[in-house]
Amino acid sequence: MQIESASISQLAEWEKELSTHYERIRQHELNLDITRGKPSAEQLNLSDKLDGILSGDYRAAGGTDTRNYGGLIGLTCARELGADMLQVPTEEVIAGGNSSLTLMYHAVLTGYLFGFAGNTPWRELKAPKFLCPVPGYDRHFTICEQLGIGMINIPVNAQGPDMDLVEKHIREDNEIIGIWCVPKYSNPTGVTYSEETVERLAQLGQIANPGFRIFWDNAYAVHDLGHYVSLPSIRAATLENDTADSVLQFASTSKVTHAGSGVAFVSATGDNLKSLQQQMQAMTIGPDKVNQLRHSRFFTECTSLKDHMRKHADILRPKFDCVLEHLHNGLAGMNLGQWEKPQGGYFVSFNTRPGCAKAVVNLATEAGVKLTPAGATFPYGKDPEDSNIRIAPSFPPLEELDTAMAVFVLCVKLASVRQRLKHLHQKG
Amino acid sequence: MQIESASISQLAEWEKELSTHYERIRQHELNLDITRGKPSAEQLNLSDKLDGILSGDYRAAGGTDTRNYGGLIGLTCARELGADMLQVPTEEVIAGGNSSLTLMYHAVLTGYLFGFAGNTPWRELKAPKFLCPVPGYDRHFTICEQLGIGMINIPVNAQGPDMDLVEKHIREDNEIIGIWCVPKYSNPTGVTYSEETVERLAQLGQIANPGFRIFWDNAYAVHDLGHYVSLPSIRAATLENDTADSVLQFASTSKVTHAGSGVAFVSATGDNLKSLQQQMQAMTIGPDKVNQLRHSRFFTECTSLKDHMRKHADILRPKFDCVLEHLHNGLAGMNLGQWEKPQGGYFVSFNTRPGCAKAVVNLATEAGVKLTPAGATFPYGKDPEDSNIRIAPSFPPLEELDTAMAVFVLCVKLASVRQRLKHLHQKG
Repeated sequence: MQIESASISQLAEWEKELSTHYERIRQHELNLDITRGKPSAEQLNLSDKLDGILSGDYRAAGGTDTRNYGGLIGLTCARELGADMLQVPTEEVIAGGNSSLTLMYHAVLTGYLFGFAGNTPWRELKAPKFLCPVPGYDRHFTICEQLGIGMINIPVNAQGPDMDLVEKHIREDNEIIGIWCVPKYSNPTGVTYSEETVERLAQLGQIANPGFRIFWDNAYAVHDLGHYVSLPSIRAATLENDTADSVLQFASTSKVTHAGSGVAFVSATGDNLKSLQQQMQAMTIGPDKVNQLRHSRFFTECTSLKDHMRKHADILRPKFDCVLEHLHNGLAGMNLGQWEKPQGGYFVSFNTRPGCAKAVVNLATEAGVKLTPAGATFPYGKDPEDSNIRIAPSFPPLEELDTAMAVFVLCVKLASVRQRLKHLHQKG
Repeated sequence: MQIESASISQLAEWEKELSTHYERIRQHELNLDITRGKPSAEQLNLSDKLDGILSGDYRAAGGTDTRNYGGLIGLTCARELGADMLQVPTEEVIAGGNSSLTLMYHAVLTGYLFGFAGNTPWRELKAPKFLCPVPGYDRHFTICEQLGIGMINIPVNAQGPDMDLVEKHIREDNEIIGIWCVPKYSNPTGVTYSEETVERLAQLGQIANPGFRIFWDNAYAVHDLGHYVSLPSIRAATLENDTADSVLQFASTSKVTHAGSGVAFVSATGDNLKSLQQQMQAMTIGPDKVNQLRHSRFFTECTSLKDHMRKHADILRPKFDCVLEHLHNGLAGMNLGQWEKPQGGYFVSFNTRPGCAKAVVNLATEAGVKLTPAGATFPYGKDPEDSNIRIAPSFPPLEELDTAMAVFVLCVKLASVRQRLKHLHQKG
């Protein structure tokens, strides 16, 4: 039955049943966590050969002693790995430290303080702003918020960001200087940008402020769950549109090897890389080349990137299936929420009925199931619909996930029914 | 004979001899490098057990899985290592990535963009400035230069920076918001700050802008060459003077284990650490904890910090001796330059006769011996006396260093004699 078809008395009875069930679960004092997109221990085990892989041979091809200082843009063999992940030429890649977020932070900083490729530093504009496809990745938004860069919500549909709206904003406001994109298995919606979306994004450089940059965070470039989904090349599209300078691409091995000790990559045109290096050269003598060498050896001596990611998929698939089954069996056909069926990435994005997300998260928390805070997937933590919840199935063991999802579905029902009851009472 | 006592004809003859010698050396087409303070391969070998030390056990004490995300301030066991190096409580230490320079950059950025502990961000001042003891570390100055922070030279004497001058500037200019200090075996002079200097520095917080911070880069905290030199505690001194917030201390294992893949530390009061964490939390999910664990295990299972540094000293001492012997045997008593005899650190600082440093560096370069560019040890690369040259003996094998120093001494003589001749001709 659709929730809208239920009468007040039907809803009241339903609420009673659900409440009783909920109170019973609260007695169990669960302590489960499906908040962040962290790999599980089983996934991390796949890369445990990293430590010790060098067997005392710390020299990279070409003779570089990776133990010593130097090499601002990273080892060639590490840059090749990044080039492979992003499908770009090695010359266009810098291999950095353990975090692509850090590379993005410094890229925003470069645009903000110094300007890319000779363009006006963003801080000299009156009101520099980023477009933020929503729901999106909270840490992207935090970077803008910290630097006082404005943010404008852009809804994401099945093809990616609403491009009509993106183009409208850019035409109307010359101080839009960036857009955050997670183009493949988007965090959290799981959407992969379509050919048309990528093409239209590539054309933005023709109408935007010349300092405008697309932050192409390809965090899930190789993170398929089984069925391979192809992302159109933003590099090729910008080259065709003579806008190659408008894109900065990012990737990392964080969800490939060990999450906290991987290698991150940024790829861009020569002029952009030069701007990034100018900022970097005041900040560091170079990245951890030893760890870069470990990664390069791992993907030549122990496994291929493709085989390795297949092993991740085998671990992750049952967890995604578990989430989707719970949602389908518990909520389908009742108009209690909407969700995507992602083919990869780390999340299932769930939209409650408008105005219910906070209530669901609170109920789940009270019942011992930690969820990403409602609103976290929006700039300033404000979901105008109070609707989006990001489910991260990767970290907990399957059994715990199963329990957590049962609680989640119950909380969605309970919050929805209570809201509906309240609404009908107010109307009546 | 002192150079001033020589007649024109004596000098001319001397110049001829030296030139002949120099031309003969040029024929050898040397390719030697005593520019940067890099550890030698022999030193790096001391820590080669790092890779593989975990033997598959990636869990830190307390059960933290170091492979995964998280832990912004670093592992406790790594923070303990930093606390040991800086002689401060563990609670006051953040353990970061592979570079203390990066921590310093972000600390300056924190002061500049956001302000420390609620104080005015430096960028909101009209003309924020750092005091820069000179000669000093070029990379400190580059950070200020990149952010447009002004720099004022402060001469360094045998006790540290000229404190009369430091206090005078701070009393006269409320927009002095920092001072760069390498307090032990200073880069490049080798000077260790005296008790009085540390005490007077600790009192600056009482008269300076409340946002003023001492950047205490204790890069050579444990880098004694044999004879242990004690540095008075800046922490203790500021606690006594009620100025504890005025200091940020830095250290790293870069010249302890592997230079490019060590662990860096910052230590400060709770309010300062809070400001640093606010900046960091937008930039990273956490440092490379796997590498932090490696370092912690290395200094418990393989060696102690003290024993390990003794091995470094045994490798470095003959190199410092070589430099000092060449300077003494070639230049003593002739008024051709001045130098220190450091008890630790990575450099020997040499002052030519005023106006000769560039000429010496050029002559040496032409003869195949690379030296740190003249002026590099001063803000904006400008040595007002054109006198200071930083000699870095650590990297080349002893035999190469021996050759390089012979060339260096020859170039000092040649440049000095030519300058003196020119001077006398102009006068005459």
